[in-house]
Amino acid sequence: LSPAPSLLHSQIAKEVAKLLDMKAQLGGDEGKQKFVLKTPKGTRDFGPKEMAIRERAFKAIISCFKRHGAEVIDTPVFELKETLTGKYGEDSKLIYDLKDQGGELLSLRYDLTVPFARYLAMNKITNIKRYHIAKVYRRDNPAMTRGRYREFYQCDFDIAGQFDPMIPDAECLKIVHEILSDLQLGDFVIKVNDRRILDGMFAVCGVPDSKFRTICSSVDKLDKVPWEEVRSEMVGEKGLSPEAADRIGEYVQLHGGLELIERLLQDPKLSQNKLAKEGLGDMKLLFEYLTLFGITGKISFDLSLARGLDYYTGVIFEAVLLQQENQHVEEPVSVGSVAGGGRYDGLVGMFDPKGRKVPCVGVSIGVERIFSILEQRLEASEEKIRTTETQVLVASAQKKLLEERLKLISELWDAGIKAEMLYKKNPKLLNQLQYCEDTGIPLVAIVGEQELKDGVVKLRIVATREEVNVRRESLVEEIRIRTSQC
Amino acid sequence: LSPAPSLLHSQIAKEVAKLLDMKAQLGGDEGKQKFVLKTPKGTRDFGPKEMAIRERAFKAIISCFKRHGAEVIDTPVFELKETLTGKYGEDSKLIYDLKDQGGELLSLRYDLTVPFARYLAMNKITNIKRYHIAKVYRRDNPAMTRGRYREFYQCDFDIAGQFDPMIPDAECLKIVHEILSDLQLGDFVIKVNDRRILDGMFAVCGVPDSKFRTICSSVDKLDKVPWEEVRSEMVGEKGLSPEAADRIGEYVQLHGGLELIERLLQDPKLSQNKLAKEGLGDMKLLFEYLTLFGITGKISFDLSLARGLDYYTGVIFEAVLLQQENQHVEEPVSVGSVAGGGRYDGLVGMFDPKGRKVPCVGVSIGVERIFSILEQRLEASEEKIRTTETQVLVASAQKKLLEERLKLISELWDAGIKAEMLYKKNPKLLNQLQYCEDTGIPLVAIVGEQELKDGVVKLRIVATREEVNVRRESLVEEIRIRTSQC
Repeated sequence: LSPAPSLLHSQIAKEVAKLLDMKAQLGGDEGKQKFVLKTPKGTRDFGPKEMAIRERAFKAIISCFKRHGAEVIDTPVFELKETLTGKYGEDSKLIYDLKDQGGELLSLRYDLTVPFARYLAMNKITNIKRYHIAKVYRRDNPAMTRGRYREFYQCDFDIAGQFDPMIPDAECLKIVHEILSDLQLGDFVIKVNDRRILDGMFAVCGVPDSKFRTICSSVDKLDKVPWEEVRSEMVGEKGLSPEAADRIGEYVQLHGGLELIERLLQDPKLSQNKLAKEGLGDMKLLFEYLTLFGITGKISFDLSLARGLDYYTGVIFEAVLLQQENQHVEEPVSVGSVAGGGRYDGLVGMFDPKGRKVPCVGVSIGVERIFSILEQRLEASEEKIRTTETQVLVASAQKKLLEERLKLISELWDAGIKAEMLYKKNPKLLNQLQYCEDTGIPLVAIVGEQELKDGVVKLRIVATREEVNVRRESLVEEIRIRTSQC
Repeated sequence: LSPAPSLLHSQIAKEVAKLLDMKAQLGGDEGKQKFVLKTPKGTRDFGPKEMAIRERAFKAIISCFKRHGAEVIDTPVFELKETLTGKYGEDSKLIYDLKDQGGELLSLRYDLTVPFARYLAMNKITNIKRYHIAKVYRRDNPAMTRGRYREFYQCDFDIAGQFDPMIPDAECLKIVHEILSDLQLGDFVIKVNDRRILDGMFAVCGVPDSKFRTICSSVDKLDKVPWEEVRSEMVGEKGLSPEAADRIGEYVQLHGGLELIERLLQDPKLSQNKLAKEGLGDMKLLFEYLTLFGITGKISFDLSLARGLDYYTGVIFEAVLLQQENQHVEEPVSVGSVAGGGRYDGLVGMFDPKGRKVPCVGVSIGVERIFSILEQRLEASEEKIRTTETQVLVASAQKKLLEERLKLISELWDAGIKAEMLYKKNPKLLNQLQYCEDTGIPLVAIVGEQELKDGVVKLRIVATREEVNVRRESLVEEIRIRTSQC
């Protein structure tokens, strides 16, 4: 009895599917053409050169964070989905969710601030100064040449705790100033404003409460778009009265220092608004502290600074690079904002079962743009960057000395010397010297029949081609001395 | 005209949903109870103390990798799903997939080896020695007290390239030996075997080709399960003949050194098998090199070592801790394997459009278990671990000196001194000294009216309570000298 034709068809289809599956699993020659050999959209690998640059930037940033007494923490790359819900306003659509494979619903972290607040609430920590350097994830439209990725690093420094006003806030700005100066990224300005001043300004300009947020996000565009466009968005799309818009227009063009703060504290309208007055009073205090730090030259109180994130409650700030310092670069990249932050006194309370608040202020350094600049500068310069720290290559001039090379390199490793050898039984001396040239290894320890008999090693200084015989028992010390200057 | 009741109902329902949504978005007091305040299953936060321990372990591992001349790379946390397909055999079900939110299908990386192979093929790199330290993700059953997590670190060192046999392989074992010795984790043994010896053994024992893999995975259980159970799985579940199983049983109980290799090279059956002979020849060479490195004392050629991953083609190895060194620990954790690796000559070819092979050998250090041991040992010891590097606290004994403290700390920061102060206008001296005790800050720089007049700062050494007046212009140097010993 043969099966019905339709049954046969479905059986054949099943078998074909099974075979295709097996083929895919085997990954044999036939399956190869299917592979798309790439990293996911908006992501990239860091090769040894990029890593060397990345580590330079991190070193400057971490040593600054440590100079300011910060501890370090780390959190998982994903959080419960609900931990992130309701924290990012409209940007929530950019969150990466994990597939529901049974169990908890998870999302990749969007920043390091919300996980930090979750960590504080979960561990009932009311007082900490910490940094956290890790990758965050946003399903944004990548613009990788301008340093905008879907997977990117944030370097966050935050101070949590109930303290006297503006002292931690001033330290955050000092930190941004130190890092940007240290990295020599060229001229920069740190714009400062306060959520309370913005809200007070909106109130006295006649913006209805319900429109504060959306008008705020219009103001946020002023660094990219002229006032006329922003105004027409406010009036046209967002239904603000032209009079209110014009009043805002007058304020948001203001920027300056202490004298502007003093002037606004006398402003007949703003000075009548409780929030604005509070914000301006604190801003004055902040500028006094920044004066003591000697950094007001790069700080601008800027009423057009708005910053998108929902959770800010007080001071907000953003550091902007003004131009490429290095003029050799042919196409200077427009880099814009490289750091930002502010005060968020309500976020931890959103996680605490009893709503207990832990005031926080922090800064996030956006290193991808900094990497781009450092990479570009390095390419323009003559500097050859090393990607290893190897001090010496263990080499031989004659054949059949593999065992002797292995013995010597083992001695060096055990003494803490950074040493390499070519993985060949009988490498040519020229190839070994070439390897040093290519990788920047400064010394070559050459073993040969005669040297072995004499109990010495021939040490060659790659840069000068000088060669000296060193007694085997002094070799480690000699290598240390000769590489301590580099 | 009033709407129909059903319409009314649906309208009410809609409004309720809207309100609930708004409530959730506001995250107000009423919404809070819903939050589950935790990290996802199988993951954890690293607080400052755990980070201090983690950084100690990483420091030992990284300095070893650098000592051996490795470059460093980094790859994205997720890969195209198809990049991971067909690489992990049965374990593929443990891969975390991302939700399909439009665009590419992505998965979190399962190890660092497959992304490394993808990186090599994509960039046509045929020759590299690199390390990579990063988190990987497995939807496994977590056993967190034993150091098994769903998000965990791997520290990988790999050598890619066409070289003379067993030289890079021997270096990988030397690296494991150096790291485990350096971390002082107690006694350990590194088991070594070879895929070719295993396959040859299966062949001469009469295992049909089609059963190699599944029998191999039975052998893999021998470190946890006695032979009798493994045998009955082979015969009962997997349909192997009892005779074949018994022949395997004789081999897999063998372990030793050079003399065992020599003996098996004379074994009438094994010596007739091409694969086994090749593997044994290389194993002999490996042991010769390890003898030159002086580490054979901790190496065991062990015929029961199988390792699960599909991609191994030659030498395989696994390091196992034998016992807790520290006897003060009340409940010694059973830790088992802390490092593993092997040769995988075919993996890069699976990604290359033309199937070009790049031979690779590498080792992965499983640091979570090492963290557990170090944490436990630290708890048992008296040692107080510092979580900051702060050298000096800037303090004041009187009120109204906030400005002076800010000026002084700013000078110290600018000179590269690691300095903190309390964020209070008028902190009590006792509280400031207590802060130093709590956090291990060794020095206090005290400003007071008299000191300011005299142009000095009072420097207090916390440990001895000694106090000396230091001229302000010498303070930086004095702090450097006094903290250089610590």
